[in-house]
Amino acid sequence: MNAPDPRQFLSLAEHAARVGAGILMEWRDKFTAREKGPKDLVTEADLASQVAIRKLLLDAHPDHDFLGEEDASLGGRQTERTSDFRWIVDPLDGTANYVHRLQTFATSIGLEYKGQIIAGCIFDPVTDECYTAGLGCGTTLNGQPIHVSDCQEISQALVAVSFRANVMRGSRDVNRFIETLHATQSIRRLGSAALNCCYVAAGRLDAYFATSGIQIWDVAAGILIITEAGGTLTAADGGSLNFEHPELLAASSSRLHGQMLEVLQRADQM
Amino acid sequence: MNAPDPRQFLSLAEHAARVGAGILMEWRDKFTAREKGPKDLVTEADLASQVAIRKLLLDAHPDHDFLGEEDASLGGRQTERTSDFRWIVDPLDGTANYVHRLQTFATSIGLEYKGQIIAGCIFDPVTDECYTAGLGCGTTLNGQPIHVSDCQEISQALVAVSFRANVMRGSRDVNRFIETLHATQSIRRLGSAALNCCYVAAGRLDAYFATSGIQIWDVAAGILIITEAGGTLTAADGGSLNFEHPELLAASSSRLHGQMLEVLQRADQM
Repeated sequence: MNAPDPRQFLSLAEHAARVGAGILMEWRDKFTAREKGPKDLVTEADLASQVAIRKLLLDAHPDHDFLGEEDASLGGRQTERTSDFRWIVDPLDGTANYVHRLQTFATSIGLEYKGQIIAGCIFDPVTDECYTAGLGCGTTLNGQPIHVSDCQEISQALVAVSFRANVMRGSRDVNRFIETLHATQSIRRLGSAALNCCYVAAGRLDAYFATSGIQIWDVAAGILIITEAGGTLTAADGGSLNFEHPELLAASSSRLHGQMLEVLQRADQM
Repeated sequence: MNAPDPRQFLSLAEHAARVGAGILMEWRDKFTAREKGPKDLVTEADLASQVAIRKLLLDAHPDHDFLGEEDASLGGRQTERTSDFRWIVDPLDGTANYVHRLQTFATSIGLEYKGQIIAGCIFDPVTDECYTAGLGCGTTLNGQPIHVSDCQEISQALVAVSFRANVMRGSRDVNRFIETLHATQSIRRLGSAALNCCYVAAGRLDAYFATSGIQIWDVAAGILIITEAGGTLTAADGGSLNFEHPELLAASSSRLHGQMLEVLQRADQM
C-alpha cells in the first residue's frame, strides 16, 4: 500500500482545531465573570475542547488511534496501538498564556502514519490564523502558501526558546538561553511551542529550540508545518527527532541550523 | 494655574498613534515584495511614522516640545525646553519584531507636563488594540475601562522582562532573569516594552521589569497606562522613576511589587 494522501485529512483536522479552539474562547469569556482563580475552569475548558476534537476525529475514522494531551496529563496511559494512524492532539498549547488572557495560545492537531507525521493543523483563535501542512504538500496560513525566512546568519536571527519554568541555575537550559542570547539578534520566550513552530514556518522567527518540558502533542503538527515550509528540523542534538522526548531544534535554513547547533553544543560544554 | 485636564489631549494622541501605526503597516506590506533585507526600509518606515505624528501633534500645539525616538537614535539632541508640555513619542516600539513580521509592536505617545506624564496612548495595529490613559481618568482598552490583575502571589505571576540583546554572562540582567524564572509561574520576553506595560494594565501580565536598554520614549505612555489601571510602578530599585534612565518595575499590586523587588535585589547580590 502506498502512503496515504494527506490532503484527505486536512479539512477534518482544520475543522476539529477550529471547534476545539472555539470551546477555549467560550470558556475564556466565562473567566471574566468569576472572581476566583480560573485553574479548575482551565482544566474543564481544556478537557471540553479535547472531548469535542476526539469525537470529531474518531467519528470520521473510528479505527484510528488517538493521543491527547489531557489524557496523558491526567495520568491516562497511551492505549495499545491498533492502527497505523494516530491523531496527536493538544487542545490548548500555551496554557499559562491562556489562563492570564495573554495572546499566543493555540489548538494543535497532528496525524501520524507509521511513525511519521503526515498532516497537521494549528489554529490560533485570537488572531484567527490557521496553519496547515500535509506531507509533500507544503504549508499554508489561512490558505496561502508560506515559507521560512531566508535568514542565513545567526547574528541576524530572531530565535524563540521553550524550556520548563523550574529550571535550575547553571542548568543546561539556562546556559543554552544565555549562549543563544549572545549569538543571535534577539531571543523570545512566547509561551506556546505550537505557535513558535508556526512562526518559524511563516518566517517571523528564524529558529526555535525546545530542550525541556516538551511533549510530542505540543509539536506533532508543528514539526510538519516547519519542514513543509522549507525549514530544517532535528532533535536538539542534531539527530533524529524522538517522539518520546521531542527536544528539537528548527531553523529556516540548514546553514542557520548548523550555526544554532554549534551554539547549543557550546552551551552544553560550559 | 491648575494642572491641565488630560482628556483634552487624548483624542489627539490616539489619532496620531493610529496614523503613525498605519504608516508602519503600509511599509510592512512593501517588505514582502523585496528580496533584500529590510533594514533601510525599517528606518524609513520608522521615520515616516514619526514625521507624521510630530506634524499632527505640533500643528495642534505649536508651542509644545517634542521628543521622538528617531531624533534621539539618529544622534539628534534633545532640544532646549521651551514649554511645560512635551510629547514623548516612539513611532515603533518592538523594532526587531516588526522587522521579522512577528506580532507585538506598537506606536507609543505620551504627554509630559512639568515632569509628570499626564496622557498616554499605545496602539497595536496588528491586534487593533488601543490603550489610552489620562492622569486621574483611568485606563481604557478600545474605550472600555481596564484594570490590573488581582495576583498577590509571585509564585502565580506571569512576568515579562526587557533587557538588551548583548548582555554578558553573569551580568545583573541575566541574574535577574534567572531569579525571576525561579520565583514566578513563568517569564516572557515579548520584545515590546510599550505592550508589556499595556498587558500589565489589562491583567494579562502580573508584573514587568526593564533593567537595561530602555529609554523614556519606550515607556512614557506605558507608565501612566499601568498606574491608571491600578498598578504599582517604581524604578527598578524601588525609588522614583528617572526619565533619563527609566529602569522600572511594575506590578499589579503593591504586595506583588514588594515580592518582585526582593527577587531583583536577591539577584543583584549574586
